[in-house]
Amino acid sequence: MRIGLLGTGNVARALAAGWARAGHGIVLGSRRPDDPELRAELKELLATGVRLESSASAAADAEVLVNATPGGASVALLTSIGATALAGKVLLDVAVGFQEDITLTHPVVSLGEEIQQAFPDTPVVKTLCTIDRELMVDPGSLEGPSTVFLSGDHADAKRSVRTLLTDLGWPEESVLDLGGIVTSRGQEHYALLFVGIAEAIGSYGFGIRVVPPRR
Amino acid sequence: MRIGLLGTGNVARALAAGWARAGHGIVLGSRRPDDPELRAELKELLATGVRLESSASAAADAEVLVNATPGGASVALLTSIGATALAGKVLLDVAVGFQEDITLTHPVVSLGEEIQQAFPDTPVVKTLCTIDRELMVDPGSLEGPSTVFLSGDHADAKRSVRTLLTDLGWPEESVLDLGGIVTSRGQEHYALLFVGIAEAIGSYGFGIRVVPPRR
Repeated sequence: MRIGLLGTGNVARALAAGWARAGHGIVLGSRRPDDPELRAELKELLATGVRLESSASAAADAEVLVNATPGGASVALLTSIGATALAGKVLLDVAVGFQEDITLTHPVVSLGEEIQQAFPDTPVVKTLCTIDRELMVDPGSLEGPSTVFLSGDHADAKRSVRTLLTDLGWPEESVLDLGGIVTSRGQEHYALLFVGIAEAIGSYGFGIRVVPPRR
Repeated sequence: MRIGLLGTGNVARALAAGWARAGHGIVLGSRRPDDPELRAELKELLATGVRLESSASAAADAEVLVNATPGGASVALLTSIGATALAGKVLLDVAVGFQEDITLTHPVVSLGEEIQQAFPDTPVVKTLCTIDRELMVDPGSLEGPSTVFLSGDHADAKRSVRTLLTDLGWPEESVLDLGGIVTSRGQEHYALLFVGIAEAIGSYGFGIRVVPPRR
């Protein structure tokens, strides 16, 4: 699959490496694709065949476009690419507008909903935002199975994203479909509990597992 | 221990029954303690020795006071009881201001923090608000261990609450202390993910377990 990744931070890098290993064609999109410092930082990744281009170019080429930009900046960046250029592409949104003072940039309606509303011709799927970047691409690193969530209004898009999760090593039975894009609220707001748990156990490399009732 | 419970809804009833079974003296506090309809509804519980009194009276008698009122109404009720009457008591806060439109009455600063700030002489401990009432008092009903969280600024108060959790059947190793009362945000905001999971799996009777990295 041709995957465009908006963002060149730690999350984008981890996902790019993970999906490149699975055989996908990856283009990272940046506002400064020619910056020599950024190219030097990404040297290893680019050596594996991952490309670094402008955000618009990464989007143009992609079947699935991943939003791994800071949550507070995502809508502006997507708007600069434009609704026409984004139409028909699956937008896999992993962003959360988490701020240093333990608040969210989207404290009521979620970023996932806001993006879906701004780009109605682009099916948005929220996922992977409840776990740290290293775990995203290495779910077997935990002492037991954990859960990853899906939110989105479009069944076909969610099917594509499920496949991409499997490619990262997530077993089918670990993926829980929460429902429509409105359920992004739950995934995004969990960021506040995530940081509390991380602080308490001294690691970001944990998951949560939904433990069902005994039958 | 003498436990006062503010609220007579499903959560208050479940907790009252659970702690009564463990041998604690329980007073339920209500705005209408003489309402014959309410007394009829609570008949079984009252037959076990649980008392039903005014909110002020339940607070006056208590060593630990449990806030199990609707989150949007909690501060007003506590204010009507008064800071002097609440001083020195542990306030175990299980309330979340969850609203039907999937928003919180406290979308930025948590209810737990707001209560602690309004009543600085009353140590507040937030707990049990990430799980359904039946699971609160029967943690062994799940197919495996799950996690319950603590938030609060006062170590002594958290120790008392830990004991009360043990009395409900929560193993010591299931209790995760997140830190200060600011971490209530994580517990309260998790309500949005909680309802998404409940909808997805068709049950409120689930827990989440923090799955740590493999050693």
